[in-house]
Amino acid sequence: MKLWEKKYTLHSAIESYTVGDDYVYDQQLVPYDCLGSIAHATMLQKLGIVSEQECLQLHQALHEILTLHEQGEFKIKQEDEDCHTAIENFLIKKVGAVGKKIHTGRSRNDQILTALRLYYKDQIQGSIMTANDLIDTLTKLVNSHGTTALPGYTHMRKAMPSSIGLWAGAFIESMKDNTHLLMHVNTLIDQCPAGTGAGYGVPLPIDRTMIAKLLGFQKPQENSIYVQNSRGKFESSLLHAFTQIMIDLNKMASDLLLFSMPEMGFVSFPAEFCTGSSIMPQKMNLDVLELTRAHYHQMVSWEMQIKTMSANLISGYNRDLQLIKEPVMKGCACTKESIEVMTLLIKNIKIQKDACEKAMTSDLYATDKVYELVKKGVPFRDAYRQIARQYSQGV
Amino acid sequence: MKLWEKKYTLHSAIESYTVGDDYVYDQQLVPYDCLGSIAHATMLQKLGIVSEQECLQLHQALHEILTLHEQGEFKIKQEDEDCHTAIENFLIKKVGAVGKKIHTGRSRNDQILTALRLYYKDQIQGSIMTANDLIDTLTKLVNSHGTTALPGYTHMRKAMPSSIGLWAGAFIESMKDNTHLLMHVNTLIDQCPAGTGAGYGVPLPIDRTMIAKLLGFQKPQENSIYVQNSRGKFESSLLHAFTQIMIDLNKMASDLLLFSMPEMGFVSFPAEFCTGSSIMPQKMNLDVLELTRAHYHQMVSWEMQIKTMSANLISGYNRDLQLIKEPVMKGCACTKESIEVMTLLIKNIKIQKDACEKAMTSDLYATDKVYELVKKGVPFRDAYRQIARQYSQGV
Amino acid sequence: MKLWEKKYTLHSAIESYTVGDDYVYDQQLVPYDCLGSIAHATMLQKLGIVSEQECLQLHQALHEILTLHEQGEFKIKQEDEDCHTAIENFLIKKVGAVGKKIHTGRSRNDQILTALRLYYKDQIQGSIMTANDLIDTLTKLVNSHGTTALPGYTHMRKAMPSSIGLWAGAFIESMKDNTHLLMHVNTLIDQCPAGTGAGYGVPLPIDRTMIAKLLGFQKPQENSIYVQNSRGKFESSLLHAFTQIMIDLNKMASDLLLFSMPEMGFVSFPAEFCTGSSIMPQKMNLDVLELTRAHYHQMVSWEMQIKTMSANLISGYNRDLQLIKEPVMKGCACTKESIEVMTLLIKNIKIQKDACEKAMTSDLYATDKVYELVKKGVPFRDAYRQIARQYSQGV
Amino acid sequence: MKLWEKKYTLHSAIESYTVGDDYVYDQQLVPYDCLGSIAHATMLQKLGIVSEQECLQLHQALHEILTLHEQGEFKIKQEDEDCHTAIENFLIKKVGAVGKKIHTGRSRNDQILTALRLYYKDQIQGSIMTANDLIDTLTKLVNSHGTTALPGYTHMRKAMPSSIGLWAGAFIESMKDNTHLLMHVNTLIDQCPAGTGAGYGVPLPIDRTMIAKLLGFQKPQENSIYVQNSRGKFESSLLHAFTQIMIDLNKMASDLLLFSMPEMGFVSFPAEFCTGSSIMPQKMNLDVLELTRAHYHQMVSWEMQIKTMSANLISGYNRDLQLIKEPVMKGCACTKESIEVMTLLIKNIKIQKDACEKAMTSDLYATDKVYELVKKGVPFRDAYRQIARQYSQGV
Repeated sequence: MKLWEKKYTLHSAIESYTVGDDYVYDQQLVPYDCLGSIAHATMLQKLGIVSEQECLQLHQALHEILTLHEQGEFKIKQEDEDCHTAIENFLIKKVGAVGKKIHTGRSRNDQILTALRLYYKDQIQGSIMTANDLIDTLTKLVNSHGTTALPGYTHMRKAMPSSIGLWAGAFIESMKDNTHLLMHVNTLIDQCPAGTGAGYGVPLPIDRTMIAKLLGFQKPQENSIYVQNSRGKFESSLLHAFTQIMIDLNKMASDLLLFSMPEMGFVSFPAEFCTGSSIMPQKMNLDVLELTRAHYHQMVSWEMQIKTMSANLISGYNRDLQLIKEPVMKGCACTKESIEVMTLLIKNIKIQKDACEKAMTSDLYATDKVYELVKKGVPFRDAYRQIARQYSQGV
Repeated sequence: MKLWEKKYTLHSAIESYTVGDDYVYDQQLVPYDCLGSIAHATMLQKLGIVSEQECLQLHQALHEILTLHEQGEFKIKQEDEDCHTAIENFLIKKVGAVGKKIHTGRSRNDQILTALRLYYKDQIQGSIMTANDLIDTLTKLVNSHGTTALPGYTHMRKAMPSSIGLWAGAFIESMKDNTHLLMHVNTLIDQCPAGTGAGYGVPLPIDRTMIAKLLGFQKPQENSIYVQNSRGKFESSLLHAFTQIMIDLNKMASDLLLFSMPEMGFVSFPAEFCTGSSIMPQKMNLDVLELTRAHYHQMVSWEMQIKTMSANLISGYNRDLQLIKEPVMKGCACTKESIEVMTLLIKNIKIQKDACEKAMTSDLYATDKVYELVKKGVPFRDAYRQIARQYSQGV
Repeated sequence: MKLWEKKYTLHSAIESYTVGDDYVYDQQLVPYDCLGSIAHATMLQKLGIVSEQECLQLHQALHEILTLHEQGEFKIKQEDEDCHTAIENFLIKKVGAVGKKIHTGRSRNDQILTALRLYYKDQIQGSIMTANDLIDTLTKLVNSHGTTALPGYTHMRKAMPSSIGLWAGAFIESMKDNTHLLMHVNTLIDQCPAGTGAGYGVPLPIDRTMIAKLLGFQKPQENSIYVQNSRGKFESSLLHAFTQIMIDLNKMASDLLLFSMPEMGFVSFPAEFCTGSSIMPQKMNLDVLELTRAHYHQMVSWEMQIKTMSANLISGYNRDLQLIKEPVMKGCACTKESIEVMTLLIKNIKIQKDACEKAMTSDLYATDKVYELVKKGVPFRDAYRQIARQYSQGV
Repeated sequence: MKLWEKKYTLHSAIESYTVGDDYVYDQQLVPYDCLGSIAHATMLQKLGIVSEQECLQLHQALHEILTLHEQGEFKIKQEDEDCHTAIENFLIKKVGAVGKKIHTGRSRNDQILTALRLYYKDQIQGSIMTANDLIDTLTKLVNSHGTTALPGYTHMRKAMPSSIGLWAGAFIESMKDNTHLLMHVNTLIDQCPAGTGAGYGVPLPIDRTMIAKLLGFQKPQENSIYVQNSRGKFESSLLHAFTQIMIDLNKMASDLLLFSMPEMGFVSFPAEFCTGSSIMPQKMNLDVLELTRAHYHQMVSWEMQIKTMSANLISGYNRDLQLIKEPVMKGCACTKESIEVMTLLIKNIKIQKDACEKAMTSDLYATDKVYELVKKGVPFRDAYRQIARQYSQGV
C-alpha cells in the first residue's frame, strides 16, 4: 500500500514509469533510513507523540529490519515505491497502530535526504580510507624505486629527466589535495535535514537539534526550503570531489598504458592482471587500466547529469530529483572500486630499470646544456638559441 | 572458462572490475548474438570449415539457446564475462569439438558489433512505431479540440493567440522530423561488421557479403579499422536522434506541467495518473511529467558519456568502449517508455475549454491593433510605437 | 534606438547583460539578414504593403549594407542589440518612412531563424567541401604509401598486421559517412521559418512559399510554434554532425601523436609544423595535433550546452535560446579550420617506411599461426589454446 | 619573435590554429604575469643571476608594462603567441641583454600557472564580495517583507504555506555555503607553481619559497609534475564552485519568472528591467532572468569542457590544456556579472502582497487538518487517510 493511497489506483504504466529503478537503489538505503527512523521515534517520544513503550516497539521493529537487511531478506518491491514505504508498511504490520505514528512530523522529502546524507558520509569516509591506502602504496613505491630515472614528457615528447619518485610523488600530493576537498564536501553534507517536512516545515514543535545530534550530524540545516533546494547541489559537489580522484586515476592509467607498451617497457604487470583476446593468442592486455580511464568519463557525465537535471526548476521538491540517486550511488561505488584496483596494481607493478635507463637519451639533457652556458654568464635566451640551432629538423 | 584462457587465472578483483555489469547488459543481446552465429556457421560451411552436418548441429544448438533465452533460462554468469563466451561454452558442451569451430574467422570485436547493430535496428524500428502512435494520438487531439483557443506564450508571458491545434501540431511536425533523423541513423547503422575480426581482418576468405545478406544488413561495412572506430560514433548518433525525441517530450511535459497548474487550469488529467504526498493529503502531482522532463537530461548525459569516452583513443579497439553498452541500452529503453507514457497521457488529457477561453485576455490582441493601423497605411514601426505607448509600466 | 523602444530607458546593467556578445556574433549574420530582408521586401510588394518604388528603395539600401559589410564598415553597436535593429535603423535613416515598413509581417523571432539557417546551410556546404579535400588527400596517401606495413593495435598493444592504406582507408570511409549525416542535417535545416512571426503567425496573408523559394529553401517550415521549438534542436543536430567529423580528427590526431613519438617513429612532419618550448631547446612538438584533439571536447561541450540550455522550457521563444549563437558559430568555425589543418598535415606527412617495417615483430603474426593449424583441421579454439600457451608471462 | 624561434618559420596556418584566441585571453593576464616576473627577477637577483642594477631595470620595465596595460596600450599580437612572449620581447627591446635573462630558471609552463592562479585568487575574492552583496540584499528583503505569506510549491503544485522570508532565507543560507566552498577552492589554488619549469624542475637552486612569499601564496606547490597535472583540476574545482552559485541564481530566476507571470502576480519589477518585442507592443519581458537561467548551462558545459579536455592525457604538459583558458575566464566573468544583476533585481523587486494573500487557498492547509486530528490522538497515517479522502479527483 502506498503511503499516499487514496480512493483510486495508480495506472500501472504510470507506476512503473514513476518508480523506475528507485526501489532497487533504495535497497542500499534501508539501514540509513532505519537509523533515521530510530532517531525520529526517540524524538517523537520526547514530544509525547509516542509513549516510551511505543518508542521501544518501534525501535525493536526497526532493528529487526536492520537484521533482515544484513541477511539480505528485507526486499523492497516495485509497488512499495521506495524504502520509506516498505519500512512503514513493515512497522504497521509488526506493531499495528503504533507503526502508523512513525511518519508524524516528517515527510518522505526530509526522510530520504536524511538517509542519503548518512549514506554519503559513510561513502566519503570509505573513499578517504581507500585513497589513503593508495597514498601509502605510492609512498612505498617511492621508497623502493624512487630514484630510478624516467624520461619526463611534455607534448608526448621527451622533455627533461624525471624519475619514478617524481612521478609517484605527483599523485601522492594530488591525492592529498583530493582528500581535503572531500573533507570540505563532508562538512557541507554534514547538515541534518530531518524535521523540515516537505520543504515547508511541520505543524509540530519538532526538536531538530535533538535528531541531528542523535544521528551524528554537525548541525541541523536551518532553512526548510534550502533543504530541498540543496538536493542535487550537495550531490554534485560530492561527485565533483570524486571526479578529482578519478582524473588522477585516469592520468595514472594513461601513463601506465603508455609506459607498459612494449615499445617503452618502463613498467610491467604480472599475468594475472592481464586479459586476452578471443582471436589473438599472444595478447596480454591491461583492460583494467583502460576501464579505469573510461570510468572517469562516466563520473563526469553523472556529475553533469545531476547538474543539468536540477536546473530550470522552481524552489521546493520536484520529482525530477529522484533520478539523482542512480548517478550518485553509481559514482560512489565506481570511485571506491577504482581506487582499490589502482592500489592493487601499484602494489604489483614491476619497474623495468634497464628499459628506463636506456630511455634516458641525450635530448633529455638539452636544457642542462643551456644552463651550462647560463652559468658561464650567457643570458638565458641567447644560450637557448645557441643550443636550439642543433634542433631544427622536423619530427 | 574464458575464451582467451591461458596458463594463469585472472585476479578476482581484476575480473570483477573488468567484467563489471557487462554480463548483465549482454543478457539482452543473447538472441542477436545467436542470430549472428547462425549466419556465421552457414558461412563457415560455405568455406568448408564446418561440414553440412556440423553446421546443422550448430544451428540446432543455437536455436536451443534462443528458446532457453525466451524462457528466461539462459543466464550469463560473471565468470563468463559476456554473452559470446556463454554461448561458445554452451555450444562446446552441447556439440563438442564442433563448438570449438564456431569462433573460426571472427573475433569478439566484430561479433559484439554485429549483435549490437541488430539490436539497434530493432530499437529504431520500435521507437519509430511508438513515435507514430504519439503522432496519431496528437492528431486525434487536433481533430477533437484543435480549435480551442489557448494563449500563446513567449518569454513565459502571454504573446499572441494560439490554439490546442497549433500547440499539438508543433509536436506532430517535430516528431515527423525526428523519425526522419532516426531513419538516417538506421542507414548509418545498417552496415554489417561481421568478418572484420579484431579490426585487422582474418586470414581466411570470409564471405562478408553473404553474412551481411543473411542478417538483413544493407551492406558490409568495408574497412575493418573503421568498423572498430565507428564504435561509439554510431551509438552517439543513435542517442542523438533519441534526444531529439526526448527534448520534444521534455517540452511537452514543461508545457503540460504549467498548463495544468490550477492557476492556469488549461488542461487536466484523471486521478489515476497522479501521485500523492506522504504528508500532504490534498496533493495530486503529475510526477510522471516531471520524470519525463528529467529523463531528457539522463539521455543527454548518456550521449555525452559515449562521446567523451571514445575520444583521445588511438584507432582500433580499446576496452574503454565496453562501457558504452550501459548508456546506449538505457537510452533505448528510456526513449521508448517515455514516448509510450506521453501517448497514454495525451490519450487521457482533458482540455478545460472554459479556462482556456477565460485566459484569452485583451493583451494577446495588441499586435492585431498594430495591424489595423498598418492596414490603414501607417508604416509598421510607427503603428507599433503608437500602440506600445499604452504598455510602459513594469511587470 | 531599440525596435521595441517605449517610454522608458532600459537599465544600463540590464542592457549590457541581456545583449552580451550577441551583437558581436550578429556581425557575421549581416549578409544573411540582408538577404532575408530583400526577399521579405519583395513579398511585401506582392502583398501591396510596399509599392514597387519602395521595394526598390529597400533593395538598394539593403545592397548598400551588403557592400558596407564586405568592406568591414557595417558595424553593429551594443545599443543596437542585434543585426536586425542595426539594419532597420539604417534603412529608416536611408529611406525614411519606407524603412519603417520593412518589419511588417515579421518578428525578430522568425527573422533571426531565417538568417541563421541561411548561414548554417553555407557552413554545411563549406564543411562538406573541406571534408572532401581531406578525403582526396587521404586517398592520395593510400595511393602513394598504402602498402607500407604498420602494426595494428588493440588495447594499445600490437595486435595484427595493418598498413598505411588500411589506416587511411578507415578515415576515408568514416568521413564519407559523416558527410552523409551532414547532408541529412542540411535537409532538416532547409526549412524556411520566415513568415511565422513570434511563433504565432502574423495577421497578414504572408506568402511563405514565395519567401522560401526566393531564399532557396526547400520548403516553408509549416507550424509556427515548431519553428520556435526547433531552435536549439536543429543547432544540436548540426553540432552533432560536426562532432562526428571532429571525433575522427581526434582519433587521427591521437594516432599521429603516438606514431610520431620517436619511440615509434612511423611518421614524421616537417619542422614548419612543429612548435617549440621556451625552456627546452631540443623540443619539436606537434601542438597542432594536441589542439585538434582538444577541440573535439570543446565541440562536445558546445553541443551539450545547446542541448541542456533548451530544455525545461515551455513552447515558444524564450530568451535563453539567444545564447545558442555562440556555441553554434564557434562550432562551425572550429570544425572547418580543424579539417583544413588536418588536410595540410596529411599532405605533408612523411611515412618512415624503415621504422614501420622494423615494428612488424613476430607477435603480430600469432593469429596466423593459429590459422595454419585451423587449415590443418584443428578446431579453432584448440588451435588458439595451443599457440596461446607460449604467451602467459605478464606484460 | 617567438621565444622558441629556431632556424625555420612556423607555417602560417599552423600558427593561426595553435595560437587561436589565446593571445586575446592573455590580455587579461598581463598584470598578473608582470607581478610574477617582478617576483622572479627579485629571486634571480638573490641567486646572483641578475645584478641589483639589472633587477631594478627589469622591475622598472615591468612597471611600465603595468602602466601601459592600465591605459589599454599594451597589446599582445597573434604572432606574439601569448603574454609571456609579448612581455619578454618588450623587456629585451627596453633593457637589452638584461631582458634575455628574465626567463632564466623558469618555463612558460610554470609562468602561466603562476599568472592564472593570481588571477583566480582575485576572481574568487571578487565573487565572494558580490555574493555577500546579494546576501545583504536578500536580508533586507527578509526584513522588509519576510512575513508576507506565499504559497509553498512542490511538484509545481501548491503544497503548504511559505513566506517571502522563508523563500529569501533559503538563498541566503545556500549562498553562504557557496562562499565556504569557494574559500576551500581558494586554499587549493593558493599554491605557488613558480620555479617548477616545464614540470621537471630547473637546473638552478631556485628559491621557491621566496617567490611564493613575494606573490602572497600560502606555500609553494611541491611536486613539479603535480603542478602541471593540476592544470585543469584546479580550474574545474573553481568552475564547480561557481556553478553552485549559478544554480542558485538559476533557481531564483526560475522562481521569479513564474511568480511574476501575470497569472500569479506575486512579484513585479520596474519597467526599466524589462525588454520588449519587435512585433508585439504590449510585451514587457524579463529577458534578464531568462538569461541568468541560461548562463547556468553555459557554466556547466564549460566545467565539463575542462573536465573532459584534460582526461586521457599522460602526465606533464599537453597543449590541449591551453584551451582551458577560455571556459575558465568566461566562467569567472559570467558568475560575477550574474550575481550583480540578480542583486540589482532583488533590490528593485516589488512584492505584490495582495496577490500573495489571495493565493493562500485552503488546500495549502490540508496538512494542518491532519495534524489537528493527530493532536486529538489519531495516528498520523489514519489522520492522513481521513483527510485525503476529500482529494481523489484528478487534476
